[in-house]
Amino acid sequence: MNLTLLMPLGAAAALIFAYVRAKKVLRESEGNELMQKIAASIRQGANAYLKRQYSGVAKFFAVVFVLMLALSFMGQMEIFVPFAFVTGGFFSALSGYIGMKIATSSNARTAFAASQSLNSGLKVAFSAGSVMGFTVVGLGLLDTSLWFFFLKYIVYAGLPEAEQAMKISALMLTFGMGASMMALFARVGGGIFTKAADVGADLVGKVEAGIPEDDPRNPAVIADNVGDNVGDVAGMGADLYESYAGARLSASALAVSAGFGMVGMAVPMALAAIGIFASIIGTFFVKTGEDASQRSLLGSLRKGTYIASAIVAVASYFLIQYAFGGQQTGLFIAILVGLLAGNLIGYFTEYYTSDTYKPTQKLAESSETGAATIIISGLSLGMMSTAVPVVIIGIAVMASFACSGGIQNFEAGLFGIGLSAVGMLSTLGITLATDAYGPVADNAGGIAEMSGMEESVRDRTDALDSLGNTTAATGKGFAIGSAALTALALVAAYVDQCKAIKPDLVLDLSITNPSVLVGLFVGSVLPFVFAAMTMSSVGKAAMSIVTEVRRQFREIRGLMEGTAEPDYHTCVDLCTKSAQQEILAPSLMAIIVPLVVGFTLGVNGVTGMLMGATASGFILAIMMSNSGGAWDNAKKYIESGHLGGKGSDNHKAAVVGDTVGDPFKDTSGPSINILIKLLSTVSIVFAALIVNFSLNL
Amino acid sequence: MNLTLLMPLGAAAALIFAYVRAKKVLRESEGNELMQKIAASIRQGANAYLKRQYSGVAKFFAVVFVLMLALSFMGQMEIFVPFAFVTGGFFSALSGYIGMKIATSSNARTAFAASQSLNSGLKVAFSAGSVMGFTVVGLGLLDTSLWFFFLKYIVYAGLPEAEQAMKISALMLTFGMGASMMALFARVGGGIFTKAADVGADLVGKVEAGIPEDDPRNPAVIADNVGDNVGDVAGMGADLYESYAGARLSASALAVSAGFGMVGMAVPMALAAIGIFASIIGTFFVKTGEDASQRSLLGSLRKGTYIASAIVAVASYFLIQYAFGGQQTGLFIAILVGLLAGNLIGYFTEYYTSDTYKPTQKLAESSETGAATIIISGLSLGMMSTAVPVVIIGIAVMASFACSGGIQNFEAGLFGIGLSAVGMLSTLGITLATDAYGPVADNAGGIAEMSGMEESVRDRTDALDSLGNTTAATGKGFAIGSAALTALALVAAYVDQCKAIKPDLVLDLSITNPSVLVGLFVGSVLPFVFAAMTMSSVGKAAMSIVTEVRRQFREIRGLMEGTAEPDYHTCVDLCTKSAQQEILAPSLMAIIVPLVVGFTLGVNGVTGMLMGATASGFILAIMMSNSGGAWDNAKKYIESGHLGGKGSDNHKAAVVGDTVGDPFKDTSGPSINILIKLLSTVSIVFAALIVNFSLNL
Repeated sequence: MNLTLLMPLGAAAALIFAYVRAKKVLRESEGNELMQKIAASIRQGANAYLKRQYSGVAKFFAVVFVLMLALSFMGQMEIFVPFAFVTGGFFSALSGYIGMKIATSSNARTAFAASQSLNSGLKVAFSAGSVMGFTVVGLGLLDTSLWFFFLKYIVYAGLPEAEQAMKISALMLTFGMGASMMALFARVGGGIFTKAADVGADLVGKVEAGIPEDDPRNPAVIADNVGDNVGDVAGMGADLYESYAGARLSASALAVSAGFGMVGMAVPMALAAIGIFASIIGTFFVKTGEDASQRSLLGSLRKGTYIASAIVAVASYFLIQYAFGGQQTGLFIAILVGLLAGNLIGYFTEYYTSDTYKPTQKLAESSETGAATIIISGLSLGMMSTAVPVVIIGIAVMASFACSGGIQNFEAGLFGIGLSAVGMLSTLGITLATDAYGPVADNAGGIAEMSGMEESVRDRTDALDSLGNTTAATGKGFAIGSAALTALALVAAYVDQCKAIKPDLVLDLSITNPSVLVGLFVGSVLPFVFAAMTMSSVGKAAMSIVTEVRRQFREIRGLMEGTAEPDYHTCVDLCTKSAQQEILAPSLMAIIVPLVVGFTLGVNGVTGMLMGATASGFILAIMMSNSGGAWDNAKKYIESGHLGGKGSDNHKAAVVGDTVGDPFKDTSGPSINILIKLLSTVSIVFAALIVNFSLNL
Repeated sequence: MNLTLLMPLGAAAALIFAYVRAKKVLRESEGNELMQKIAASIRQGANAYLKRQYSGVAKFFAVVFVLMLALSFMGQMEIFVPFAFVTGGFFSALSGYIGMKIATSSNARTAFAASQSLNSGLKVAFSAGSVMGFTVVGLGLLDTSLWFFFLKYIVYAGLPEAEQAMKISALMLTFGMGASMMALFARVGGGIFTKAADVGADLVGKVEAGIPEDDPRNPAVIADNVGDNVGDVAGMGADLYESYAGARLSASALAVSAGFGMVGMAVPMALAAIGIFASIIGTFFVKTGEDASQRSLLGSLRKGTYIASAIVAVASYFLIQYAFGGQQTGLFIAILVGLLAGNLIGYFTEYYTSDTYKPTQKLAESSETGAATIIISGLSLGMMSTAVPVVIIGIAVMASFACSGGIQNFEAGLFGIGLSAVGMLSTLGITLATDAYGPVADNAGGIAEMSGMEESVRDRTDALDSLGNTTAATGKGFAIGSAALTALALVAAYVDQCKAIKPDLVLDLSITNPSVLVGLFVGSVLPFVFAAMTMSSVGKAAMSIVTEVRRQFREIRGLMEGTAEPDYHTCVDLCTKSAQQEILAPSLMAIIVPLVVGFTLGVNGVTGMLMGATASGFILAIMMSNSGGAWDNAKKYIESGHLGGKGSDNHKAAVVGDTVGDPFKDTSGPSINILIKLLSTVSIVFAALIVNFSLNL
């Protein structure tokens, strides 16, 4: 059997499965009229945001496309690259769009289902999550399949297979940039939107006006709920589409560099397809009895992912045996290493951020001496939590390199590292499903609150939401771990690419070479600058919401008494505008810096820069995500009645921590993962330009 | 003239100058009986702390000394290394001790002088600072001189000069570890002490009991003032002793590797000596008319440093011409680059942290929406402020490498980088003087407050203190910038050292080599883990002070009414104990991690680790120092009457920021600079062990 055929099969299976699940969700009832109305408002706001974002992004893509086209005509870029750039961006955007569509159609349905039973609520929310998960992987493989078959059977049809593999893999490596660019826009824009709305709604509504969270009188409440969808759903979808693409494409390119030809190139794709089938099987195990406790719900979700992982583990053994005729069993171990490393990082993320473990409980206790000490402790917790993932990734890199025969064949070892990233992401379909259902449950809670449903419904959606926090921690582990491995694979592939463009290029990648070193410093600082930019963007956007909400409370008569309706639309609009304005600078930075470094410090400098950004970005992303997550859960821990409970001084201190954590965990932290890959893909796309025109080579 | 003779001459000049200045300060009056009594209490506390710290450190040094001795007998280390380790630690400790002695003898004298005029206050405080500055540089050159002449004229007396140079420079390179180790203890221990006392005194005294800062009824007030001396003076002295040693020794080693022989080796030492003479001349320009404004005071301090820099710039031209017979003018440019880079980083540090510029003013404004937003903005400010220093250092590295002929002769280029670090630190005598006078003025203010002197005296000491903050910012620029350059030079020297130990060693320092890469990741995470450890140590220690101060307020009758005296001693003792306990873990980490990385990942891995730690440490140190400095000054800006002034909600939010900033800027931030060099010197000292026994070479 031709392994490449697995690609379109996997893509088709994922998309059909997503479609079937979507149909099933949409058959559920959306509840009463009020619920439908609220859901429609959220949907409308999310649509408006995405419409605006996509039209803004389209302009940006158009400009870059034209520039790329010009470079192609000047012979500095393959002619297909600009088009692939656009398709990558398109499919990434589409993943986010579909995810958002289904999420905004499932929130009221989840709330209604939760009014019947906890399990019904879980089912609807999880189904919505699955639609998103399988859309992402399905579209990812679809894009790759289309290009692969077009290149193989039309463009390079006449060439011998080995040469085909070389050409196709090199070309497809450049295809990641569109997806990464789109992901950055979606994550940063969505992150700014959601946190500006959240912080703005809380600061005026909860703190100043003293009304509860998700109260319909709060003018920013719809914006807040829209934010969950555009940030945590659409943003995450685009983000993981990008991770998935980067991992597969870089692994394929490294396989060809290592001399494994067309078969090697097909293996990462086939592994991804196997992961899809395994994930589909896994989803059928997510079910529980009617009287399930929260622990057994979690067990049920975990069961699904573990079964999927087990299937991939077994099947990949046969895949490697089949592909390489029993020659490369080490590559199978590399896949296992990836799967294991992802799970371990996920476990430690949970350990550091869940209030069932000591670190977060101790963090909550540090609220006893006020806001300053909970901030210091939270930052310290986040910094400390970076050590274990670094060690895990370090061991994973060494192990997958060594067992793939890297000591004899350096390139084979690099392929092993790349394959281990693909292994880590192979079960993305189901891990993303368990991740994406969280925001749906969160939204359902908002609708339950706003439509005045019974207390018990809100309790159930809260239970689902809090379960979502736990699964999201695992999901983050996979996202962060795979980002590091993928970025490393991309850098290795970048170096190969440069050598392929100019075979007589002499590189000195030694870390003591000043060009590499200065590149390393510049790269290391980028995640910090990027985090600074995105955090201050959230601050600015939140300030504009605060001002608007205060204005409405002041000017709209009868708002507090509930006799007049607030103007939700303006808040949504303000968030949209701010998000659009603020994404430009960090995105431009990600394109311009690699070019400037390339022109001044050459390929050596760019390589140093990419490694520096990967190392410091990986660490900063973990720190920010974990500090933020721990503050959030410390606050919830206190709210659940510990240390004085809601309204106590401890709680007030914890709220400060949570607010600081908001941009940490939902804007800056997750975007850094995309940044480090975007820097790599930009460098790859413009490699010829640098190789031919750098001042320092 | 033999250039090496400049070393002892410079050392003697510095020490004599320090002695004369000290005599002069001690002739001033210590004021009335109460002032003398308070000063004696502070002195006693500081003495007690240092005694305890030094006896603890002595045990640690003894253990390491014995281990080193054992390694020497096993042929894994030169026999002189353990002894040099001890002398480095001893002189570093002595620098801190003398600085602390003079500072605790000058605080009351400064307060008394300030009661006469602002200028008299400045003179006494600046003289005390000079004693410290010149003691550090004098002892630094003294230690080097002693060893140099002992090795050259006794141990290696029979060898030809070229071989002598090789042996001596390689050996002396290993001498930095003692100084670095001691500096880490002093900085971290002092930093924990001072911030625990500060936070503890403020949380209970200012916030809970509502008494002013430095009120004699506060049981932690003496500990707080002791902290200024053991942290900001003794800690800083040991720290800069270490920077000064590391820069000179690594530059000398690189000079010999580059083939410049004994003359090349002498150049960094001679440059340091020239810097001492220039600094002495500079100090005579620090004087003003009796009616000077604060701006003209600052101008006067700056004049001193600028004149010293100008003298070094001119003299180093002749030094280079004389040493290399007109062949290496590029090295002169490298020195200039270093001087300029230090000043530029200092300027940008001031820009980001002084309330006369926009960033800190804007930070103060973000207190309008509460503690959370001032924290987010401060972190974001700190992260953003890392970009410019990275670019400056990047340009400095490239420029000093290129103009020293690094493109033709790689080693010569590295020597240029090392020399540029020495250039940056050459005027340390006077920059440290302008830096160290700040804590003396701070202490003087405390004494003025406690002894009930007139308001105007406190105003004057506050003016001196705030001036000190500005000069300290410049001083920090030099410390951080030189740490980065020195660390790079140390890494380069480390690699040379390994090759010298085992000439057939094959290294692959390519950044895409998995060992280098994993080393890079591990190194990058170390500063984060170190910062986490030290921050949580401050938190723990502060909690113990809070408990004790609360106990005293509760149990000592008449304390609040002023009829009974608090038990100052217990607070000092508690801080001392906590600081001692908490320094052990981070110090051990700095020794153990390089060994573990060396045994598992070999020299390649260690090199990657050192570079990763340098890059991420440099950035994190700047971020933490600048965030902390900006929060401190934003609070002072509000206190000076802006945005509602003292007691307003804005002020409360700013106090939270300042408290978070305390461990940032005075404990973790500055210690990271030492950490990155200690990692290098540890790697150098144990190089033979790794080269001979690593599992991965």
